[in-house]
Amino acid sequence: MLNVGIVGGTGYTGGELLRILCGHPKVEIVAVTSRNAIGKKIEEVHKNLRGIVDMEFVDTRPKIAKECDVVFTAVPHTKAMSIVPELLKYGSKVIDLSADYRLNVKEYERIYGVEHTDKERKAIYGLPEIYREDIRDADLVANPGCFPTGAILAAAPIVRGGYVERIIFDSKTGISGAGVNPTENSHYPNLAENVIPYKMIDHRHVEEMREELGVKVSFTPHIIAAIRGILTTAHVILKRKLTLKDAVEIYNTAYRKEPFIRLYDDIPSLSYIRGTNFCDIGGFSLEEDNDRLVIISVIDNLVKGASGQAVQNMNIMFGLDEKMGLFYPGLSP
Amino acid sequence: MLNVGIVGGTGYTGGELLRILCGHPKVEIVAVTSRNAIGKKIEEVHKNLRGIVDMEFVDTRPKIAKECDVVFTAVPHTKAMSIVPELLKYGSKVIDLSADYRLNVKEYERIYGVEHTDKERKAIYGLPEIYREDIRDADLVANPGCFPTGAILAAAPIVRGGYVERIIFDSKTGISGAGVNPTENSHYPNLAENVIPYKMIDHRHVEEMREELGVKVSFTPHIIAAIRGILTTAHVILKRKLTLKDAVEIYNTAYRKEPFIRLYDDIPSLSYIRGTNFCDIGGFSLEEDNDRLVIISVIDNLVKGASGQAVQNMNIMFGLDEKMGLFYPGLSP
Amino acid sequence: MLNVGIVGGTGYTGGELLRILCGHPKVEIVAVTSRNAIGKKIEEVHKNLRGIVDMEFVDTRPKIAKECDVVFTAVPHTKAMSIVPELLKYGSKVIDLSADYRLNVKEYERIYGVEHTDKERKAIYGLPEIYREDIRDADLVANPGCFPTGAILAAAPIVRGGYVERIIFDSKTGISGAGVNPTENSHYPNLAENVIPYKMIDHRHVEEMREELGVKVSFTPHIIAAIRGILTTAHVILKRKLTLKDAVEIYNTAYRKEPFIRLYDDIPSLSYIRGTNFCDIGGFSLEEDNDRLVIISVIDNLVKGASGQAVQNMNIMFGLDEKMGLFYPGLSP
Amino acid sequence: MLNVGIVGGTGYTGGELLRILCGHPKVEIVAVTSRNAIGKKIEEVHKNLRGIVDMEFVDTRPKIAKECDVVFTAVPHTKAMSIVPELLKYGSKVIDLSADYRLNVKEYERIYGVEHTDKERKAIYGLPEIYREDIRDADLVANPGCFPTGAILAAAPIVRGGYVERIIFDSKTGISGAGVNPTENSHYPNLAENVIPYKMIDHRHVEEMREELGVKVSFTPHIIAAIRGILTTAHVILKRKLTLKDAVEIYNTAYRKEPFIRLYDDIPSLSYIRGTNFCDIGGFSLEEDNDRLVIISVIDNLVKGASGQAVQNMNIMFGLDEKMGLFYPGLSP
Repeated sequence: MLNVGIVGGTGYTGGELLRILCGHPKVEIVAVTSRNAIGKKIEEVHKNLRGIVDMEFVDTRPKIAKECDVVFTAVPHTKAMSIVPELLKYGSKVIDLSADYRLNVKEYERIYGVEHTDKERKAIYGLPEIYREDIRDADLVANPGCFPTGAILAAAPIVRGGYVERIIFDSKTGISGAGVNPTENSHYPNLAENVIPYKMIDHRHVEEMREELGVKVSFTPHIIAAIRGILTTAHVILKRKLTLKDAVEIYNTAYRKEPFIRLYDDIPSLSYIRGTNFCDIGGFSLEEDNDRLVIISVIDNLVKGASGQAVQNMNIMFGLDEKMGLFYPGLSP
Repeated sequence: MLNVGIVGGTGYTGGELLRILCGHPKVEIVAVTSRNAIGKKIEEVHKNLRGIVDMEFVDTRPKIAKECDVVFTAVPHTKAMSIVPELLKYGSKVIDLSADYRLNVKEYERIYGVEHTDKERKAIYGLPEIYREDIRDADLVANPGCFPTGAILAAAPIVRGGYVERIIFDSKTGISGAGVNPTENSHYPNLAENVIPYKMIDHRHVEEMREELGVKVSFTPHIIAAIRGILTTAHVILKRKLTLKDAVEIYNTAYRKEPFIRLYDDIPSLSYIRGTNFCDIGGFSLEEDNDRLVIISVIDNLVKGASGQAVQNMNIMFGLDEKMGLFYPGLSP
Repeated sequence: MLNVGIVGGTGYTGGELLRILCGHPKVEIVAVTSRNAIGKKIEEVHKNLRGIVDMEFVDTRPKIAKECDVVFTAVPHTKAMSIVPELLKYGSKVIDLSADYRLNVKEYERIYGVEHTDKERKAIYGLPEIYREDIRDADLVANPGCFPTGAILAAAPIVRGGYVERIIFDSKTGISGAGVNPTENSHYPNLAENVIPYKMIDHRHVEEMREELGVKVSFTPHIIAAIRGILTTAHVILKRKLTLKDAVEIYNTAYRKEPFIRLYDDIPSLSYIRGTNFCDIGGFSLEEDNDRLVIISVIDNLVKGASGQAVQNMNIMFGLDEKMGLFYPGLSP
Repeated sequence: MLNVGIVGGTGYTGGELLRILCGHPKVEIVAVTSRNAIGKKIEEVHKNLRGIVDMEFVDTRPKIAKECDVVFTAVPHTKAMSIVPELLKYGSKVIDLSADYRLNVKEYERIYGVEHTDKERKAIYGLPEIYREDIRDADLVANPGCFPTGAILAAAPIVRGGYVERIIFDSKTGISGAGVNPTENSHYPNLAENVIPYKMIDHRHVEEMREELGVKVSFTPHIIAAIRGILTTAHVILKRKLTLKDAVEIYNTAYRKEPFIRLYDDIPSLSYIRGTNFCDIGGFSLEEDNDRLVIISVIDNLVKGASGQAVQNMNIMFGLDEKMGLFYPGLSP
């Protein structure tokens, strides 16, 4: 059994880690910390866990690091970089769900507006479909952002083939990505019967996409009236001709053996992957006259876009079956 | 391993049986029938099962009965009574999700407007919290309706205590209870931003409630803008005084050991039980002047209200741990 | 032209007053106050008014009272009672949308937990269908609460007929009734795919219902996943027999000439009255064995439940056509 | 007073025409036809009109044409071209809400797969912001499609300036655009908590955009969980540099005097234009490195995207104030 800890367990990603890990056959949850909820029962915060997870939030980070084989850090951006070094020092492996170790330091500092206090640390970008071998040996995995996961997986094969001039990712996300605290955007009268574009050109996640894809990338996110899920419409502008059949074949080749990528011709739906670690990719369409290839990807932002992918990384890091605790159907309808 | 069959696998309850059973550690799904989809891949109908359930719909009911330890019949009301006898004859146990064996024959014939063609058959009403011992030995279990499950569980303890003069159940249900086929009520412009009362006094399910509770029962269902879930507001009119503390204690005593009932003081939420077999009961409030006790119950109509409860019954019938394959947290948020 | 002022114009009811009044042919909006938004353009707060209402929020209450024929006070409960006397003193009529003048003082002080500082003032309860004649001559109208409007209109005729033993109002409301500020209940992940019961026995509005109806009244509100609208299911327990036909006839007689009440046999829908001042009443059903009559009413909580009814009262107070500026179809779908 | 007729009045656009026209001070609705509902009361089909529009559906097209100054044809594509000639012949002007007269004949026949039976007829494309002068004198106006209205208005000024290489319109539409009949896409369990891309490269409306804009246009529509509204994200790829300030100025200049276009810096919202004839345009953002200008437009698909624009055209054709009956605030929240 793996001894597992969670630092920062009161948010949606913390709750989702608990939802997944409490059913994982090789995991023992040892401790869950929270600065603001010390001593409170976990099931009072995550009421879906009532009768299932019988623990309290604690505040013993050094102890966690010593007792745990792996710790998930689910704390806000700019906070993780002060916690992670300590955890690693005491011998735990770390999977960080914040942005602190995803980017090159210079871009990170520009985007997040703070100095990085743990500059020299090397982390592996935790996208198993691309970095699986590196993840196996990693002590620190930087779990990808939700938008980059859906976008990069949608575009990587065709980019690697050398066909792409530029990509415009137009993404539609459920509101849970914005967290547990009520905001203007999450206020029901504002979001229901609506769709809210934001950060039209400069969302923080675009840099992750650019670093991983290496082509001209534009990105505009929109919040939809949904709790979970990200659907990304990848408008891929081609610089070389190819047929639709060839495009589909490139994806088949790239993802044939991937346990959590499902390819199909028809259009992916948030309904098919709700609550799961799958990234479904489909809807391939080629607008020949305009050299535009359209690809649709869907993920659950809290699972493949965060906590599920983190557990997938854990499975890889500890030599477990990559699908363990994660391979179940979506809640559909 | 139990060999399990499903008759009528294309609807929501069929899909939900597959979602649950494909992760059940003691179940082998042997065959899934459908008159209209013979030869079609299951994952083409239930696309959330892609890559997980690799089977085709078949039409071999006699064969199913011979090969299976238990068959779930998920066919429309009035159809089951012609299928169930055959299945039982060939040696399979049966859990029927239709209404055909839930009621006394006379009421059934009045409500469904057909003659019952299998009148003499005895079935056990599959509400484990009430009939667990009978279910153990049953060959045929009549799985309860979705509304009755939530309503009866909300009211049974206080009724048994002899406190109740009458009950008005005002229920709010997600639209998935109405099935996979688009209708006026399921048409998004009609249901979104709305709530639709229907069958204000004569919903078919009220008779189940009356037979099980034995007091004066009224029932008015409403469709809410939700996919899953039933929240029932039980307005219980008392004929004997009791304190709120006593009322809560009656429920604690009744349900203390129930694995799928969670009691609490605060108000239950569809969010906490989404996708699960739990029935959460809470919100206990006593309006003393008016002798009204209010109790709120929530279930997932497709799980505890249908397929999950059916699997719970299966576990009991075959001596398995009642929680097997069913004990996991709700998808929240 | 009537000179009209609004005190407290930044909330939903203030915005809705502006939406309605800006199209009213006999109204000139003279001033709109807001403590927190002085000097801000109204269209920056109510962006639907852009290009239509070109005014700024001011803070000149005495001046308002002098310049206006009528002032609407749309301020929180317990605030109105210190503003209203001043407005009346300077010669304006007042329509108060708060609860401050709706109840007898003793009940008010018990429910709102403050001493009433304007105890002797007499206000008319602004439900035109019941108090039209009194409203004509009123200087101060206490505009009814949203839930009481829908509930009282649904039940008054049958109560007046002497048929009623008790009523249980089970209401379902859109979230806009809770105001413009984000809260736990208005947080999209909490409300979507859900229905939230609250104040199961002791919502502040129940006292209004009791004072107006004079029979045993119970009330349980639920928030539904909708922006606007209240649907009330009135479970009326009868003490005298009557036929369904007679019940319907009682309503026809009572409401035949009412411009804003529409009666019909089929089930009312929030969709038909969205954005309007109508109260649709229907769904009449008689459960004879249990002496239960079910009646459904629907209103738009921000219109007939607040600002629209306030304008209806204004029309009556100033001898205008009661329908003026208010008689248009709902936004359906 | 204008005598007005509607051919095909049972659908959403027919209902919306009635909702708008019944409040238009210069309009008398003379007749509303429907093949399937002859003799039925209009308010039984459009229940929001109860007590307001007291007419029956008729089937007297020749008569309509003789009695009416203008007829709106709200019939399916390919049906209008057999009705319009007759109406014109008998002396009525016609505003056709179908696609039959929007495109050049060759493209029309390719896209709709039928031969055009009224090839020689000249119609004016009814986008007042572009063709106002031509509309004044038109006998036949082809009312634009919903998507083209939002897309063309979002892009026309910058295209006319000669700055544009190509545009990708990624649109998000409420489901009412798909009509009153329940479908797979409008089935609540399929659409709620989801977003549905469709016709990724070949939606019929793209040709309208191409004919009007004259540059390389790509278009991908998505259905969102909303009843009304289209939000279009215009990803404009520039071929010449310009500053964001210049871009905004181009729009200010183009639309300064337009009564139904509202420009602003912040992000447009479906909530601000719900139920109205406005097209709000904003969210201007310039991604300099990638030569991408992002512009957001919002319309109500049933109003500015259909029936409201049709009435706007009517006002222009008959020399009325263009805003008459159409200039009111959106239903927000």
